[in-house]
Amino acid sequence: MATFEVWAPRAVRVQVKIGEASTDLSERDGGRWQGTAHTEHGTDYAYLIDDGEPLPDPRSRWQPDGVHGPSRLYDDTVFEWTDTSWSGRPLAGSVVYELHVGTFTEAGTFDAAAERLDHLVDLGVDLVELMPVNAWDGDAGWGYDGVDWYAVHAPYGGPDGLKRFVDACHTRGLGVLLDVVYNHLGPSGAYLNPFGPYFTERHLTPWGPAVNLDGPGSDQVRRHIVGNALMWLRDYHIDGLRLDAVHALTDSRATHLLEELSTEVEALAAHVGRPLSLIAESDLNDPRLVTAREAGGYGLTAQWSDDFHHALHALLTGERQGYYADFGALSALAKTLTGVYFHDGTWSSFRRRKHGRPVNASTLPGYRFLAYLQNHDQIGNRAGGDRLSAALSPGLLKIGATLVLTSPYTPMLFMGEEWAASTPWQFFTSHTEPALAEAVVEGRQAEFAEHGWATHEVPNPQHRRTFHASRLAWSEVGEGEHADMLDFYRKVIALRRQRPELTDPALSTVAVDFSEEARWLVVHRGGLRVVCSLAEHRQTVPLDGAPRGVLLSSTPGFVYSDGKVELDGESVAVVELA
Amino acid sequence: MATFEVWAPRAVRVQVKIGEASTDLSERDGGRWQGTAHTEHGTDYAYLIDDGEPLPDPRSRWQPDGVHGPSRLYDDTVFEWTDTSWSGRPLAGSVVYELHVGTFTEAGTFDAAAERLDHLVDLGVDLVELMPVNAWDGDAGWGYDGVDWYAVHAPYGGPDGLKRFVDACHTRGLGVLLDVVYNHLGPSGAYLNPFGPYFTERHLTPWGPAVNLDGPGSDQVRRHIVGNALMWLRDYHIDGLRLDAVHALTDSRATHLLEELSTEVEALAAHVGRPLSLIAESDLNDPRLVTAREAGGYGLTAQWSDDFHHALHALLTGERQGYYADFGALSALAKTLTGVYFHDGTWSSFRRRKHGRPVNASTLPGYRFLAYLQNHDQIGNRAGGDRLSAALSPGLLKIGATLVLTSPYTPMLFMGEEWAASTPWQFFTSHTEPALAEAVVEGRQAEFAEHGWATHEVPNPQHRRTFHASRLAWSEVGEGEHADMLDFYRKVIALRRQRPELTDPALSTVAVDFSEEARWLVVHRGGLRVVCSLAEHRQTVPLDGAPRGVLLSSTPGFVYSDGKVELDGESVAVVELA
Repeated sequence: MATFEVWAPRAVRVQVKIGEASTDLSERDGGRWQGTAHTEHGTDYAYLIDDGEPLPDPRSRWQPDGVHGPSRLYDDTVFEWTDTSWSGRPLAGSVVYELHVGTFTEAGTFDAAAERLDHLVDLGVDLVELMPVNAWDGDAGWGYDGVDWYAVHAPYGGPDGLKRFVDACHTRGLGVLLDVVYNHLGPSGAYLNPFGPYFTERHLTPWGPAVNLDGPGSDQVRRHIVGNALMWLRDYHIDGLRLDAVHALTDSRATHLLEELSTEVEALAAHVGRPLSLIAESDLNDPRLVTAREAGGYGLTAQWSDDFHHALHALLTGERQGYYADFGALSALAKTLTGVYFHDGTWSSFRRRKHGRPVNASTLPGYRFLAYLQNHDQIGNRAGGDRLSAALSPGLLKIGATLVLTSPYTPMLFMGEEWAASTPWQFFTSHTEPALAEAVVEGRQAEFAEHGWATHEVPNPQHRRTFHASRLAWSEVGEGEHADMLDFYRKVIALRRQRPELTDPALSTVAVDFSEEARWLVVHRGGLRVVCSLAEHRQTVPLDGAPRGVLLSSTPGFVYSDGKVELDGESVAVVELA
Repeated sequence: MATFEVWAPRAVRVQVKIGEASTDLSERDGGRWQGTAHTEHGTDYAYLIDDGEPLPDPRSRWQPDGVHGPSRLYDDTVFEWTDTSWSGRPLAGSVVYELHVGTFTEAGTFDAAAERLDHLVDLGVDLVELMPVNAWDGDAGWGYDGVDWYAVHAPYGGPDGLKRFVDACHTRGLGVLLDVVYNHLGPSGAYLNPFGPYFTERHLTPWGPAVNLDGPGSDQVRRHIVGNALMWLRDYHIDGLRLDAVHALTDSRATHLLEELSTEVEALAAHVGRPLSLIAESDLNDPRLVTAREAGGYGLTAQWSDDFHHALHALLTGERQGYYADFGALSALAKTLTGVYFHDGTWSSFRRRKHGRPVNASTLPGYRFLAYLQNHDQIGNRAGGDRLSAALSPGLLKIGATLVLTSPYTPMLFMGEEWAASTPWQFFTSHTEPALAEAVVEGRQAEFAEHGWATHEVPNPQHRRTFHASRLAWSEVGEGEHADMLDFYRKVIALRRQRPELTDPALSTVAVDFSEEARWLVVHRGGLRVVCSLAEHRQTVPLDGAPRGVLLSSTPGFVYSDGKVELDGESVAVVELA
């Protein structure tokens, strides 16, 4: 016997169709329709609204035949968990590893990914962050075109596959974060509109009408989102969520959706007895998101820190296009290392307006901000999906990695970064509708044509080879410079774990000395100094004390004498002052 | 010699036209065009964008020939102020009087209104709140169709007329608040679009595309608003602003426009050395607006409290249409008397979603919320513009007035309410464009047709008689029941001034006893009790102590014995406990 419940406030009749039999549901308060049927885990079903076509359940847990097919009943009690000793992993002090299931391995499944977990344990990361796994149309894709937020993408392995992966992570001491997208639905397979007012024309996002968070009927839309978040954390044992593009969640209510979400997740964390994290991707530079609710904030655990990335990327690469325009100086990086936001009320030429507000560095801990040298967007949204390692010397890569991994923030790597993978990570899709496929290809090419890229230089996202080219080549891990880079990442991560100065989240303890002309930078982390030389040639850098020891250096050429250190071009060292 | 400056970021050429001569302006940073011309106070001018038609200045101070005509130079130093001893009037402890210049007197001008100020002084109010006086198309109107935010409506008396009025108020010890509208422009005479991106399609308001507060170019749009607010407070000696419908000011920036505004107004207040108030009209039920900035709020002084009005109105009238649906019970009024918002996260049937969040009654002072039995919207947005006095007994009106004037909130009256004016206050317009006039009339009739009103029952807003019918009839002030009501209002206002318990803004000191069945209500204000009987017949009401004296009663029939008071039907008394 299974219970069916669906919200359809405008419907006159709602039926659940199982096989050829349709059963009427009864309307309850608030447009919720309910009923029961003699069926169980594994049975296919669909809803009929006002005698229309069969539609998948808005809360479908399983779409084994794709997003246009029927939903399948899924009973969470069937799976047998083995992670009973898992007690969670807080974000503070952790290193995050962003992973795309479809390209992490050749098979592109949860089970194949689980076979590579020993690599992550050896690397020393704490939390695996999965790019979206909700169900979308087609097999290959980044995951941001999801339409069934409650279902797990079948080509990855479906709901049981995700559970096996989480279970395997927990068994190895790794926590799991999941990327969830609540700001739009993908362009194909979105069947929410016949059910209710999930969207509103009162706000426009880059994807069209915004999700209805504050109009009539929005209580249920908010429940749809919050309920989904709780499902991952509770039923899939997920340890935290990465909330995609929260700036597109326009909500005029007195209690913003994100505050409501953090309240409910806090309650669940207390119930399940393990820490649960909420990490926003936000373009707002607004500390309110990660400020405690009792101080007028939304109470999220953390947010991604794009300004730090942009400062670091522009400094290392010299790129100034698009949103990198205001970055590139060492002073910009220094500002993001001590105050998080570069744009804290300053003019943003990319936005053609002032942007952001200052973080209160005396109260907000640094771990509330994620720092990264690369991530899926910053690689994949480039025309060719080229990683930093395609352009930068190993020395500059190591400087970048060290600055991230010794920062007061929560460091995050993108899969393969740790061995300077030679594979690109490109934009790929697998839309099944020809017109949509064509529009996506043309849109991608037109976007980059504006910046001077020829069509043939922009990989066709619909081509299978674009997807395949983005897969990691595990065979290169042990080879030459890849092996050297992996060794270096392991050492810096180990050092971060070993030295409390490096995980100290107090922003007030960070200071930065630098010279724009000589291109060197020294970051103070307690009694440690992260000494970076970006110059091509060996140079001398002043230090504010005598080194007691060198904890780490990217080249052997590190020498101290008389208040100064001498180090190789494009090299970095972490030293402890006496 | 006068300096001209205008923001026109998309223009290739900008000229100022004075008489038949056009002078080119030079472009500075950020799309600002500047220049000088040999001219002075009182000279007409217009701007030409890219050799187009002459346009009024977006910051025009004076539109003597209407909003389609040229702008006229206005020099603030010409007017001679006499209010040198005025030191301002804080909102805390004040009683506000809302006044529409066009219908307050027969002449409908600032000067005519100034002649009636002695009435307000005798009544005992502290702050006069002027409905909008910015320039709009036509002569008669409520003022919310303004298009030249910096200009003063010429038919009222223009900029000098407003200054004479403020000067006269200050001379009599009255402060002046001004209603300002930053959420839209009126439908006729709006010439901002040729100048710059003042509006954005990313958010829709009931009036169309929203004011651009967070998109490209929005720095200047925000300066346009903040600069306007500062102008009234500084150059017109205004004591505070009522901000129309701030819920339509959609702003995703890390610092909301309202917070930016309160910061700047606070700085101006320190500079001019008198208190300056910012009072929001808000449909959000969000305490953040009036919470201190240091506690994560926007730092506004106060907001209108519609829930209190709705609770009181529905209780007294029995009306339940539209947004009154959730109100009517004594318990609803009691909730708004102790916790401000009725909807503090509760279901709003009118909005078809949950609404609002609780006020922290232990920290937020009551004066931050305006309480009113009537206001321009609550009268004028009724089909016939009928005041409460058209339907309610004098006894019920006095109960309503007493509950407002003994509340912990900032009381506000609507002009004429104090003598139960027999004149309605209707919706009237004077659009000069025939198609627009027709659309407004049809829109108004269609709106009320939905609620069962025949066309002839809805006064035609374009008819001159609708405007004229809305004028106060001063001849009735001294007559019979009008005189009695005015006397009662004077007494309650005087009592509020006399007894510190009644202006104590601490919400935690308020308690309410009531009986829904017997229809009585007792409000505790320190050691005072406001005893109300809504029943038609004389009844007994329990009291939690022995009255030491009766400070005020609407009828002589008040008797105390044995822990109870007996009072007439539809009557109210304020008693002091022993």
